[in-house]
Amino acid sequence: MGRTPIRHCRNCGAAVAYRIPDDGDTRERAVCPQCHTIHYENPLTVVGTVPVLGQKVLLCKRNIEPRWGKWTLPAGFMELGETTAEGAQRETDEEAGAQIEMGRLFTLLSVRRVGQVHLFYLARLLDDSFYPGHETIEAKLFAEDEIPWDELAFRTVRTTLECYFADRKAGAFSLHHLDIE
Amino acid sequence: MGRTPIRHCRNCGAAVAYRIPDDGDTRERAVCPQCHTIHYENPLTVVGTVPVLGQKVLLCKRNIEPRWGKWTLPAGFMELGETTAEGAQRETDEEAGAQIEMGRLFTLLSVRRVGQVHLFYLARLLDDSFYPGHETIEAKLFAEDEIPWDELAFRTVRTTLECYFADRKAGAFSLHHLDIE
Repeated sequence: MGRTPIRHCRNCGAAVAYRIPDDGDTRERAVCPQCHTIHYENPLTVVGTVPVLGQKVLLCKRNIEPRWGKWTLPAGFMELGETTAEGAQRETDEEAGAQIEMGRLFTLLSVRRVGQVHLFYLARLLDDSFYPGHETIEAKLFAEDEIPWDELAFRTVRTTLECYFADRKAGAFSLHHLDIE
Repeated sequence: MGRTPIRHCRNCGAAVAYRIPDDGDTRERAVCPQCHTIHYENPLTVVGTVPVLGQKVLLCKRNIEPRWGKWTLPAGFMELGETTAEGAQRETDEEAGAQIEMGRLFTLLSVRRVGQVHLFYLARLLDDSFYPGHETIEAKLFAEDEIPWDELAFRTVRTTLECYFADRKAGAFSLHHLDIE
């Protein structure tokens, strides 16, 4: 998964061992030999938007790793205390400083290899004033024939943009539920 | 959120302190003063199914806490290395031993208060043989007027069942994207 293994118990600090717990579980977990805490590692949810103004879509040039300098739709890890849609709107504000009206859920993409689920919502930009945060070098509107396809940061962004332009051409937007291998 | 605070660093075991990291973040995280690991806590994804045979829906009586003895749709935490649909099918197998054909994504429910996102898929039961696992006391088919509404384990299960019977009555199933307060 590309994740760092758990070495110590978050509860008591003792060194953990990966083994199948005795509670009927079937998977190896990091188990604390001292306080018996079982540490579960689960997929993360990434939430973002497809911010649209007229015929153009807003992309952000990343100022952080991974994929520094590549273009992305505004998106990031969902936080505790928010809904998926609230998270998507927050990320759009943080990364692009863009004011939007949220639309429908547009893509739901399982990225098994990295243990993530990505959700992108359609969104309508209220104006073309952007105030990118520290995670973004530049926020810019792109027409379909201007999209930097070879400079996109993530496959889920590529897939979501492909679905967006295909649906726009077809004249109807629907939910795209896909797995990214 | 009802979650236990992180007390020790999973990387080196040192006691952590909750503070806003110096990397431009705006939220308090558990930060290790020794190895500088930042520990993020994010929502969990719960995946499940609405297993249907004819006019009846399969529910499972829980043999585990929380809500021991209450009825639920088969569902559980999504694991690393699987897609949302694969997780939903696995949970249906683990909790009910039920063989199903997966259908469409039916509900997507943000449960902000507990930091969870619940996804339920429609599913067609291939037969009425169930082999409940250790997490389930009993797996049983219910017609609409037999559903134990006052004995359901979770609000997301209630909401999903309400949406199911309403859509069935209307003759068309669609995605229900709701927030559970």
